[in-house]
Amino acid sequence: MLTRAPLDVASLIAARRPGYTLAAPFYRSKEIFDLDLDVIFARHWIFVGVEPDVPEPGDVMKIDIGLNSILIVRDDDNEVRAFHNVCRHRGARIVTEEHSTVGKLVCPYHQWTYELTGDLVHATHMGDDFDAKCHGLKPVHLRSVSGLLYVCLAAEPPADFDSFAAEMEPRLAPFDLRNAKVVKELDLIEEGNWKLTMENNRECYHCAGNHPELGLSFNKYAVGFVPDADDLEGQAEAAAYAADVERQVQAWEANGFISRPFEELTGRPTGFRTERIVLGGEGESQTMDTKIACKKLMGAITERKLGGLHLWTQPNMWAHFMSDHAVTFTALPLDAEHTLVKTRWLVHKDAVEGVDYDVDHLASVWIATNDQDASLVKLAQCGTRSQAYEPGPYSPLTEGLVDAFATWYVERLSAHMGK
Amino acid sequence: MLTRAPLDVASLIAARRPGYTLAAPFYRSKEIFDLDLDVIFARHWIFVGVEPDVPEPGDVMKIDIGLNSILIVRDDDNEVRAFHNVCRHRGARIVTEEHSTVGKLVCPYHQWTYELTGDLVHATHMGDDFDAKCHGLKPVHLRSVSGLLYVCLAAEPPADFDSFAAEMEPRLAPFDLRNAKVVKELDLIEEGNWKLTMENNRECYHCAGNHPELGLSFNKYAVGFVPDADDLEGQAEAAAYAADVERQVQAWEANGFISRPFEELTGRPTGFRTERIVLGGEGESQTMDTKIACKKLMGAITERKLGGLHLWTQPNMWAHFMSDHAVTFTALPLDAEHTLVKTRWLVHKDAVEGVDYDVDHLASVWIATNDQDASLVKLAQCGTRSQAYEPGPYSPLTEGLVDAFATWYVERLSAHMGK
Amino acid sequence: MLTRAPLDVASLIAARRPGYTLAAPFYRSKEIFDLDLDVIFARHWIFVGVEPDVPEPGDVMKIDIGLNSILIVRDDDNEVRAFHNVCRHRGARIVTEEHSTVGKLVCPYHQWTYELTGDLVHATHMGDDFDAKCHGLKPVHLRSVSGLLYVCLAAEPPADFDSFAAEMEPRLAPFDLRNAKVVKELDLIEEGNWKLTMENNRECYHCAGNHPELGLSFNKYAVGFVPDADDLEGQAEAAAYAADVERQVQAWEANGFISRPFEELTGRPTGFRTERIVLGGEGESQTMDTKIACKKLMGAITERKLGGLHLWTQPNMWAHFMSDHAVTFTALPLDAEHTLVKTRWLVHKDAVEGVDYDVDHLASVWIATNDQDASLVKLAQCGTRSQAYEPGPYSPLTEGLVDAFATWYVERLSAHMGK
Repeated sequence: MLTRAPLDVASLIAARRPGYTLAAPFYRSKEIFDLDLDVIFARHWIFVGVEPDVPEPGDVMKIDIGLNSILIVRDDDNEVRAFHNVCRHRGARIVTEEHSTVGKLVCPYHQWTYELTGDLVHATHMGDDFDAKCHGLKPVHLRSVSGLLYVCLAAEPPADFDSFAAEMEPRLAPFDLRNAKVVKELDLIEEGNWKLTMENNRECYHCAGNHPELGLSFNKYAVGFVPDADDLEGQAEAAAYAADVERQVQAWEANGFISRPFEELTGRPTGFRTERIVLGGEGESQTMDTKIACKKLMGAITERKLGGLHLWTQPNMWAHFMSDHAVTFTALPLDAEHTLVKTRWLVHKDAVEGVDYDVDHLASVWIATNDQDASLVKLAQCGTRSQAYEPGPYSPLTEGLVDAFATWYVERLSAHMGK
Repeated sequence: MLTRAPLDVASLIAARRPGYTLAAPFYRSKEIFDLDLDVIFARHWIFVGVEPDVPEPGDVMKIDIGLNSILIVRDDDNEVRAFHNVCRHRGARIVTEEHSTVGKLVCPYHQWTYELTGDLVHATHMGDDFDAKCHGLKPVHLRSVSGLLYVCLAAEPPADFDSFAAEMEPRLAPFDLRNAKVVKELDLIEEGNWKLTMENNRECYHCAGNHPELGLSFNKYAVGFVPDADDLEGQAEAAAYAADVERQVQAWEANGFISRPFEELTGRPTGFRTERIVLGGEGESQTMDTKIACKKLMGAITERKLGGLHLWTQPNMWAHFMSDHAVTFTALPLDAEHTLVKTRWLVHKDAVEGVDYDVDHLASVWIATNDQDASLVKLAQCGTRSQAYEPGPYSPLTEGLVDAFATWYVERLSAHMGK
Repeated sequence: MLTRAPLDVASLIAARRPGYTLAAPFYRSKEIFDLDLDVIFARHWIFVGVEPDVPEPGDVMKIDIGLNSILIVRDDDNEVRAFHNVCRHRGARIVTEEHSTVGKLVCPYHQWTYELTGDLVHATHMGDDFDAKCHGLKPVHLRSVSGLLYVCLAAEPPADFDSFAAEMEPRLAPFDLRNAKVVKELDLIEEGNWKLTMENNRECYHCAGNHPELGLSFNKYAVGFVPDADDLEGQAEAAAYAADVERQVQAWEANGFISRPFEELTGRPTGFRTERIVLGGEGESQTMDTKIACKKLMGAITERKLGGLHLWTQPNMWAHFMSDHAVTFTALPLDAEHTLVKTRWLVHKDAVEGVDYDVDHLASVWIATNDQDASLVKLAQCGTRSQAYEPGPYSPLTEGLVDAFATWYVERLSAHMGK
């Protein structure tokens, strides 16, 4: 009792009971948080943003993944690259603003100057023996899936990204994200472990009691909800919804919009799930009136009622693509009990503010929903501190995807045990 | 030197010198703070409040003991109960407000619903195999001593609570706390370890130099002060005070108010001390004019000049009961260097504000005194950080009760060594 | 991977590559910060201020070195002394204000009272067995070098302080610091490890790009800058500067102002460097117009154009002495990532504000420069958090003194290994 044993993570992993929440240390301990940064956030593909974050050559976006600061740069050949934001001289941060546009990357400390390709091109007073070629910015693996940007901090990123990209690119193509623009970006710090942020996202059991705005366009049967066996009314509703989905999906697929679900959330490093869901009300968009909020539709789309294409990737992303706009979410761990959630709203790059769309209207549903989710994540985090906390049962009917997230997480820790 | 050895708490305990302050790590180290939460605050009876905090069925008070959030609930049968404030589903906090009134306890996350008895009565979508009976709120041991509420987080609470209750109930009965009301509650965060908060409370050596308001009603000879052997004037004053006490105590006891001291601060888990002291000035109450501040007296009391019944319980409580009002104090550890002190002022439930009492007048002495004590605790905490700090001598004449507190604390750690 | 090995500081020390920045843990880890407090700040001579901080008997200055609070006191015999700011009773801080004037030192908690010599002269109620002689304030080693105050918290301070004092006293004598006064004192918290604060101070490679105000009076060739071998223009400028220095140094030395450099930054506990440098522009002072900012010159100096006498001592001090004023800097570690920089400006004690000098004018260069340096230190600190950080090369031409600092630091840790 008087000696605190080191946390036995291997035993905690082994003890995880399928269908139940994780043990408290996974949500609270500094050791496991450091492990998460190492195993999850430095060895998997992490969603960081979209190509429209750096639309023009010289555009730079800074994003911090744990303690690592990363620069996303569009170079003069229009290629998007990623580098560590660390000068090779004294290690100073080169860029401090989240968004900037530069000719070259110049460290403010001693003016070491790098090309947008990362090459060091100017460093005064370093003497004859200095080899600039050995002091370029350290690159970071970067992949774009139809404009969605993922980085991996490991030397050898998971190879299964290719199959993820192959599955998603035809589905995402109609939205032409590379020709979209970010019209609003919002940072929200949730007072909870990043896994509670993700668990909150992976179920809609909590939606009915907490998300009136989202509920206007989200049909509960669309998001993993299964009625009880003896709930005859619910069974009938669910059947009616399923029939509606089948009819709309057939119509969408006939028009070339792939809509069938694809789910490999577990069993692979780059777990993901996608599906086009039918929206409620007018069925056009996740807005307060369930109609499109941007008159100019995405890409070359002409059909307003395209439902919502959902994408969830492990460990830190979810996104929804509607006919008129897309909304993407990035969860980034700050410490064991705080998580940054970045939300981006995108429309066609040629849409005109005030004519085609109004930002406040466009963003209102998810601004409200994010705040509600932040409150719930905080409640869950507080609970894990108590000696009375013990892993509780996920609903087998409506929390299967949360369980899949927890299962993926435990799998990934196990896969790296002892490495 | 380059390796930090784990803190050897057993040796620190063994090295404690009677009559001297504790070694610095007891006031500063995170390890010992965690130990205090475990050994002291999760295995002893902790004072949390009074029955008038939850006067009616459905009233709920939330109180945090270390990382544990506890609900004190008055159920529909008028029984006061305590539960862990942790939903059995995903572990969320059920109640976030300090005071609320409810019909049932409903978790905000997924609306799991509990009776005031802790039983789970409603949880949707959990499937056929789910057994609600196994998912009630976890109870916490709760005892009321004439309305003073104590909880114990351990499975097996210390059994010596019974003798404490038996000793105190006849003394407390005249104040009829269950028919009192809390008219002011004040939270103050002291910048010091909880043991420095308690040590500060256990002596009045510092009163003369720091507490002018309290000094009006507190006679220094009443609170453990013994004059030096060669202080003839002090000896005479002390003798005069003792004679006055003897006379008043005889009168009080003749009227059924038990007044003789009882002290078992050490040698038992539930250490405590009680005594009725003679107050200074008019001798009625701890107020700025030393007269009663509430015209309607406590319970069925008719005698204004009842002195002050003091109660001190280990580890975290002190309280004073006068003819017109009572004031209770709860010390709750926040981290190794911060402590919450909750102060409650109570009067008869039928007293009328503005007619019988004025809250500002009632509370003024202890509001001032608490602030003064907080400053002193901070000074003491700062000192323990220095390499020059070493355990110093308690005054054998005026700091015996501080020494008793430190002795009790060390005893309790020792009792749980290796368990 | 799942077990965090304790930091192997010995290996980190052994692995330090000369000419390169330190490994990241030296700038970030709590363990090494604690080691720095112990080995560097509690066993070396630490610059804390100047005799004019306590000009009169009874003047007291409080200064915190890590967790140790120190009192600098001028006693009634005009002797400057240092004590731990810890009462010998319950350990409370005796003095909380940074500057005060007292008759005796009285602890606010229980009024234990100490002479300015540290002797306990008054402590009531401690009984017959109490020996006041054993409870005086704990002294701290203190040395004054021509008015510059250094303390050492160790029982046995480094003996090489004598040779430092012998070298500096003749150089400092003309400024008669003991008859100067502090006209401005400024505290700035830099968001970086104290070693990054010091490294920033030990080079002017960053000056051209960051310090326009300082650049008015600082010639880059004066502060360790060596042009590249093929920089013909730079070589010519440097030669011209060197010739100018040689001419002025000869003139100064002829007038009794020792000006030649002396450098023993490494190889000894009390490493230091001094040199009188030629200033730019009018060459009189580090001001915005490079002329004196105080008409009454320091000591008995009559020559305005005396350049700037620089003094750098390891681990935490730099200072500049001009004909009209002096400016001293004290770096004090707060935690692994925060450092307090205290700046003092001094003029002749008989100089009259508004007549001889204007404080804002006097201080403007270093107020601006300090802010710029704080920004740079923060950038460097942020960089050390990244997995991409690795020790980078110091410029062999302009960062030699930074390398000397890092070398001294590693030497000192090594010297205390296993002690």
